[in-house]
Amino acid sequence: MLNFEYQNPTRIIFGRDTHKQVGERLKPLAKKVLLHYGGGSIKKNGIYSDIVASLKAAGVEYCELGGVVANPRLSLVRQGVELCREQKVDFILAVGGGSVIDSAKAIGLGVPYAGDVWDFFSGKETPRASLPIACVLTIPAAGSESSANAVVTDEVSGRKWATYCELSLPVFSIINPEFYASLPPHQIANGVCDMLCHIMERYFTETPHTELIDGLCEAAMKTIIRNGPRLLKDPGNYDIWSEIALAGTIAHNGWLGLGRQQEWAAHRIEHELSAQYDVAHGAGLAVVFPAWMKYLCDKHTGIFTQFAVNVMGVGGSLREFSFIAHEGIAALTKFFDEMGLPTTLPALGIPADAPLEQMAQHATRVDGGKEAPLGGMQQLHWQDVLEIYKLAKA
Amino acid sequence: MLNFEYQNPTRIIFGRDTHKQVGERLKPLAKKVLLHYGGGSIKKNGIYSDIVASLKAAGVEYCELGGVVANPRLSLVRQGVELCREQKVDFILAVGGGSVIDSAKAIGLGVPYAGDVWDFFSGKETPRASLPIACVLTIPAAGSESSANAVVTDEVSGRKWATYCELSLPVFSIINPEFYASLPPHQIANGVCDMLCHIMERYFTETPHTELIDGLCEAAMKTIIRNGPRLLKDPGNYDIWSEIALAGTIAHNGWLGLGRQQEWAAHRIEHELSAQYDVAHGAGLAVVFPAWMKYLCDKHTGIFTQFAVNVMGVGGSLREFSFIAHEGIAALTKFFDEMGLPTTLPALGIPADAPLEQMAQHATRVDGGKEAPLGGMQQLHWQDVLEIYKLAKA
Repeated sequence: MLNFEYQNPTRIIFGRDTHKQVGERLKPLAKKVLLHYGGGSIKKNGIYSDIVASLKAAGVEYCELGGVVANPRLSLVRQGVELCREQKVDFILAVGGGSVIDSAKAIGLGVPYAGDVWDFFSGKETPRASLPIACVLTIPAAGSESSANAVVTDEVSGRKWATYCELSLPVFSIINPEFYASLPPHQIANGVCDMLCHIMERYFTETPHTELIDGLCEAAMKTIIRNGPRLLKDPGNYDIWSEIALAGTIAHNGWLGLGRQQEWAAHRIEHELSAQYDVAHGAGLAVVFPAWMKYLCDKHTGIFTQFAVNVMGVGGSLREFSFIAHEGIAALTKFFDEMGLPTTLPALGIPADAPLEQMAQHATRVDGGKEAPLGGMQQLHWQDVLEIYKLAKA
Repeated sequence: MLNFEYQNPTRIIFGRDTHKQVGERLKPLAKKVLLHYGGGSIKKNGIYSDIVASLKAAGVEYCELGGVVANPRLSLVRQGVELCREQKVDFILAVGGGSVIDSAKAIGLGVPYAGDVWDFFSGKETPRASLPIACVLTIPAAGSESSANAVVTDEVSGRKWATYCELSLPVFSIINPEFYASLPPHQIANGVCDMLCHIMERYFTETPHTELIDGLCEAAMKTIIRNGPRLLKDPGNYDIWSEIALAGTIAHNGWLGLGRQQEWAAHRIEHELSAQYDVAHGAGLAVVFPAWMKYLCDKHTGIFTQFAVNVMGVGGSLREFSFIAHEGIAALTKFFDEMGLPTTLPALGIPADAPLEQMAQHATRVDGGKEAPLGGMQQLHWQDVLEIYKLAKA
């Protein structure tokens, strides 16, 4: 096990009716709140009116910025930064899924910073301050409600980049599985895939002596794989949603990555797809992850076999390990297929003539002059990433 | 899944050489530190001199209070409270196992309180303030390095009672598995048993829809059960200690109890044993837990069978469930036996004429006038507790 340091002070407030506490929770923490949200679905399903009623009942002042889209845009973040400064906002409440929360985190970092907030995503600067954030989670998927990460897309340069800052960890996050009954099947599937992939990015490692965390990862992945298809059949089921929503938080709050090297190559390879073609991140991962696995599988048979047997339930201890490992990838692809997710680049809507070579270079940042190879189990140069995109074609 | 709220801001600093950071970590947090420890083993194994060197190098002022024993005593806690007031201590550093950390937590609660600190353990008062605590963990077992609990024994009244206060959560805890190589076999076994029982207290529940947390509990329990006997054979093995030490923290930091009713009857039944006969808590649990399981098993076959199959590896799906459940308890007892732990009251050193009826009444506090029945799966009155003590006789 590797040395590690871990802290996650986010308070998780989980269960029925919990969102109605938001006003009283914010009252001692905030003078003026930015209420940040997406395309307005919260106005249709009643969440918006409950939140506003709770803020008003507690006497919490607020202003609003809606309009966050999937793959949240830098332009709206800059607009949010200006608004917070004008309105003297000292706390941001994100009501939404991962895109809204990431947008809120970016605004939070931007407000106290004299330069342009993109500096934190391009790697030019390290954030040193943030407005505090809290969340009401309306789509369980990204785990951003309890992570220090944020991903934003600069729609001008076509770059989708991430930042990591412990100051961005929400003060509290409210998770009410009652909200999720009305999510459409593709959002359920994308979310389930995203949380599964957050665990897989931590699970696939050759760090020795990670038995405890391996076991915790496998238990969480099995819960997701068992309950994902159940949700598609029965999306109004609170109990299934409670398993999936909590799994989504645990998948990305850092617990499942303790003491081990982590991956994140597949995420970076996917970010380039969603930056260029604006596909949903979860759908992109359903295509990229099995391709990445196929590319690495034969050199790292041990962990891929462990995955096949312990997570995907592939049997047959007498067969060759590498065969079992490939069978595990096939079983994962079958699961994605059952979830109605695309599993090839064409199915994801990526055109046959997409500039895969250039995208591979973007993903490894080689075009910036200095390559930053991806991956933990094995360093991936842009040529490797190109092979993975090719494996994802069919 | 039940509604829940969870926050644990303790920073875990894990791995080789990490204790040498203690001075620089405390520097921005403390003006004057109380260095609190046990019987002086840290002076023999070099930990004390490393800690003192680190405090001095960072220019952190400190005073000392050693002498904490297993089942930490209220008298020393009171002495610590006085010392902290005299010396204007504003931070407590516990260097030790669960007893030292619990003693430090009790002192931390006592210092800002005008009354007697025992009020928080007797239930007379709820704590509203604490000095901040940090830990350097020298015995992985109790999980106190990342829990809000503390247990103290009033040696005058013979009561061993617990308190729970989020303010007692350590600011940081340093866990260096290099320390544990010199622990004697009985401390290894007691520690392994204690952490396993912390998970079992959370695992045995009939709360519906707890699949995710059940799976995480099972993974952590299997890690403990696989690696405990390995440690007895190879106590100098850093890698095995890293699995066990991290499992001990995870067992009691609250993660494995999310969204479910918890038990804690067996702990309360054991506390009375160690209050009256000063036995080691872990050893006491090895006796009490299987007895408690036997007492409940036939009424709650589902979860006990799940435990037998998923944790203890009992097979045989064609047999009666209740048979499998009992076989799981037998397998657990066999594991405790392998660890060199006692599994009966006589083996624990409890005399044949121990006043079991009176102890059962202490455990349920019935002697205080108002009974507080134990347990989550099933309410246990003092008569039930007596039956459990009897089951523990052989």
